[in-house]
Amino acid sequence: MKLPKKVKINEVVLRDGLQLEAKILTLDEKKKIFDQLVKAAVQTIEFGSFVHPKLVPQMANSGELVELISENPNDVKLIALIPNLKGAKNAREKGVKNLNFVFSASDTHNEQNVQKSTKDSLSELKEILSYCKEQDICLSVSIATTFGCPFEGEVKKERIYWILEQLTSLDLETITLADTTGMANPQQVYDLITELTNKFPHQLFNLHFHNTRGMGLANMMAAMQAGVTSFDASLGGLGGCPFAPGATGNICTEDVVHMLHSMGIETDLSLDELLIASKTLQQLVGHETPSYVLKAGPYDRKYSIPTKK
Amino acid sequence: MKLPKKVKINEVVLRDGLQLEAKILTLDEKKKIFDQLVKAAVQTIEFGSFVHPKLVPQMANSGELVELISENPNDVKLIALIPNLKGAKNAREKGVKNLNFVFSASDTHNEQNVQKSTKDSLSELKEILSYCKEQDICLSVSIATTFGCPFEGEVKKERIYWILEQLTSLDLETITLADTTGMANPQQVYDLITELTNKFPHQLFNLHFHNTRGMGLANMMAAMQAGVTSFDASLGGLGGCPFAPGATGNICTEDVVHMLHSMGIETDLSLDELLIASKTLQQLVGHETPSYVLKAGPYDRKYSIPTKK
Repeated sequence: MKLPKKVKINEVVLRDGLQLEAKILTLDEKKKIFDQLVKAAVQTIEFGSFVHPKLVPQMANSGELVELISENPNDVKLIALIPNLKGAKNAREKGVKNLNFVFSASDTHNEQNVQKSTKDSLSELKEILSYCKEQDICLSVSIATTFGCPFEGEVKKERIYWILEQLTSLDLETITLADTTGMANPQQVYDLITELTNKFPHQLFNLHFHNTRGMGLANMMAAMQAGVTSFDASLGGLGGCPFAPGATGNICTEDVVHMLHSMGIETDLSLDELLIASKTLQQLVGHETPSYVLKAGPYDRKYSIPTKK
Repeated sequence: MKLPKKVKINEVVLRDGLQLEAKILTLDEKKKIFDQLVKAAVQTIEFGSFVHPKLVPQMANSGELVELISENPNDVKLIALIPNLKGAKNAREKGVKNLNFVFSASDTHNEQNVQKSTKDSLSELKEILSYCKEQDICLSVSIATTFGCPFEGEVKKERIYWILEQLTSLDLETITLADTTGMANPQQVYDLITELTNKFPHQLFNLHFHNTRGMGLANMMAAMQAGVTSFDASLGGLGGCPFAPGATGNICTEDVVHMLHSMGIETDLSLDELLIASKTLQQLVGHETPSYVLKAGPYDRKYSIPTKK
């Protein structure tokens, strides 16, 4: 089983993790989570998004948050999600240096999210990119619904090729392939990544999985076997699917790191500190999270022999 | 990614799934679950165990249960777990035709479970086997803590070799390798199965995974890549670890079947009927279960476009 020696984790709890939470976290609460993540040596954090505050109220304080955390001891890379050029401009005003433009591979999902066809979002991307170059901002792209659309069903790989053919010629920091509503299976992940790597041999991909149907870590294994070494993950497995109430969110950072470390794959993160961060998060959101390792402890935790009754 | 075309599922909810449940299920309730499993076309069911009723009260009605379900429309294979010769004799009295003798690869775990060393359980196995032959009973064996012991930690592969060298010469129906407390990781699973298959090329193994640390389906994928085509699974993901309260149980039958079918791997089971069974189970045990697909629905479920507010 061919696996990488080292994997990079991009922490998304402050954005994807929190955006569907009913309780709006204050700046101080978000800062508390951020500080714990820094203690765990997380190097890349998607900290918020610049979208209309009425649409995602949880993200309304993203601008204030970045002002609060941009100076931090580990010089953590801070990324904001944007859905359009307006978001890019608002983020720049707050001094954000790294943006992630998200659009969907399927038209129906993109229209639901940003009231545009995929083609129109791709046109807007070119405007955003030239704006970012002008402003000295690093731009990344996330392709939502890469592995399936909750409205349309299957997303044909030819459509992903068509999108990537336009993206790979641009000067983008990272391209993320996102399984937005947890529809992917391991065979599909392995096959698609293998084909994409053959078609676009110079492009590295970051993968974004949700654990909606329990296959998150299995999909991650399949992606690693196909050569991927960079993944989004959310502390506590927070996040979710707006269409499936109660469904589990993103793949859980501490479960991911626990699995990787147990297989001898490096991440540079501290599992112990992540577990402290995850416990803090649980207290702040006020409910249990889907984290496994927070409940069960790591695999090498030894139990003492019960005393006879 | 090399995967099998077909996989066999051995349903263990009535035994491993229920044994730690606080609420003792009545005969009628267990029969209800059994009937739904039969509707889902489950072919092999571990329905109970013959252990001291004071130790596992939930299993005390196993003898009555088998009398109630032995005549069933699909001629389902009914297996009872036994920890010793006495259990074998009690099961035979109730007419059970298939027994599964469980012991642990690690001495400390075996001593906790059956107050014997692994070596002494292996001696007892020989007695049980000759008794079963005499009585025309099929005997299988499960090796608990194959991938790690919650008391001792690592279980060396040489110990698994030592056990298997004694087992493979015997006329056993199935040998199950069990990750009893969910300590295994995919790399470890792939490596151990590959080595065992080289060392014992004529032996087929059944695998038993718990999802304690979220790696259950990833471990199953690794086992399939190493050639395994037979797995234990528990409806609703019920089951647990006596040492980690709240930790998740066995890999969940409907999540397993959903993953397999989504990859085009046959099981002969009906996912729709399994989901009905899982809903019934949830009502009978009186709490939410760790099933993902019961919550989120299958990957190909399409959502209608939300109407504008």
